Amino acid sequence: DDVEQIKAGATVLIRSHGAAPEQMTRLSQKGVNIVDATCVLVKRLQQIASQMQKDGYKVVIIGDKNHPEVQAVAGCMSEAIVIADESDLHKIAENAKLGVVCQTTQSPEFFSSMLCAIVRCSFSEVKVVNTLCKEAVKRQESAVELCRRVDIMFVLGSLESANTRKLAELCKKYNKQTFHLQNWREFDINTGSGKKVAGVTAGASTPEWIIDEFVEKLRALDRPL
Amino acid sequence: DDVEQIKAGATVLIRSHGAAPEQMTRLSQKGVNIVDATCVLVKRLQQIASQMQKDGYKVVIIGDKNHPEVQAVAGCMSEAIVIADESDLHKIAENAKLGVVCQTTQSPEFFSSMLCAIVRCSFSEVKVVNTLCKEAVKRQESAVELCRRVDIMFVLGSLESANTRKLAELCKKYNKQTFHLQNWREFDINTGSGKKVAGVTAGASTPEWIIDEFVEKLRALDRPL
Repeated sequence: DDVEQIKAGATVLIRSHGAAPEQMTRLSQKGVNIVDATCVLVKRLQQIASQMQKDGYKVVIIGDKNHPEVQAVAGCMSEAIVIADESDLHKIAENAKLGVVCQTTQSPEFFSSMLCAIVRCSFSEVKVVNTLCKEAVKRQESAVELCRRVDIMFVLGSLESANTRKLAELCKKYNKQTFHLQNWREFDINTGSGKKVAGVTAGASTPEWIIDEFVEKLRALDRPL
Repeated sequence: DDVEQIKAGATVLIRSHGAAPEQMTRLSQKGVNIVDATCVLVKRLQQIASQMQKDGYKVVIIGDKNHPEVQAVAGCMSEAIVIADESDLHKIAENAKLGVVCQTTQSPEFFSSMLCAIVRCSFSEVKVVNTLCKEAVKRQESAVELCRRVDIMFVLGSLESANTRKLAELCKKYNKQTFHLQNWREFDINTGSGKKVAGVTAGASTPEWIIDEFVEKLRALDRPL
């Protein structure tokens, strides 16, 4: 697999989503240089989930099972139940002692609606730690507030970034004129025609220069030729 | 207050709903004989709530603040928040570490609907221990099942018993012909006229002989004179 293909002496960057402890151990054993850029909140989530398992809780992770952050957290334990929607609730055993955490970039609405569904199951104990990222939540709230006040809304960031896609979905709910673009090159001049006020937001991983370039070029359109 | 009026040497019965530790201490200091008939599940609830407070949780008790069981549990801690319905949710501080328990005789539906409302508030951590009495839950389920299959339903027990009243309310939801009676003397012969199949259930504190007498006399009505 991936780790096997890395040569000793290479430098490996662990991205913000983190890696499972087993992968980290195998990397150190190979003698590679590790630059660990795991987000502190993801590290905290991994520690909370591991501790819950040690304390005898069955760990439930609310989130997308294909997201690298969720996979890295699940990789911290011998057994984790990932709940992406209500159809996953059958995975939870009856009368269990559940330890519940959430992928850091999910929305508070999704977190609480899934918690609601979980507490409707039979259980002996449920311990929930709020592991949501306050910055991501604030970004979502500001984006919603902004998109309700503009004629057209742009959400900048990779189409593969889960949190950017989520941000775009959220904005589309409140403003049908929402466009998810990767950068200025994807901007279609006709899209903006007739619109007076534009809003711009971006995913957590979108580089600053992509945003600056976009805003600058958008502003230039406003000037007389 | 009550404890002051008790004379040394007297015998005091602590009923199933329990008493606050402070009351127990004052009773022992007075030199009275204590017969402690506190229900084991209520004792467990008191211990769980006290431990939660020691562990730094703000304790939330889901239940009726005027019920003696809830008062005895609240009396185990320096500060408890009692939540009887959604209008009490404002008592919960934002971003708190909450320890949630429930009055033992509440219904699972009420417990989960209140939990649902609690997890929709902002919190840093929520620990919930299921303190419902399985016997009370089973009694409720059996009563609902029974009352759906009969023409008339009788719920026997004191009008002051919270769990009997709750049982009657629950049955009334599924069978409009539900009557909460204290004993056979309250039975009105006209009530039953034309009804073929009757169901009988009773609250946790209803004496066996009240139920036996009722069923026996009800059966006698069925016999030819």
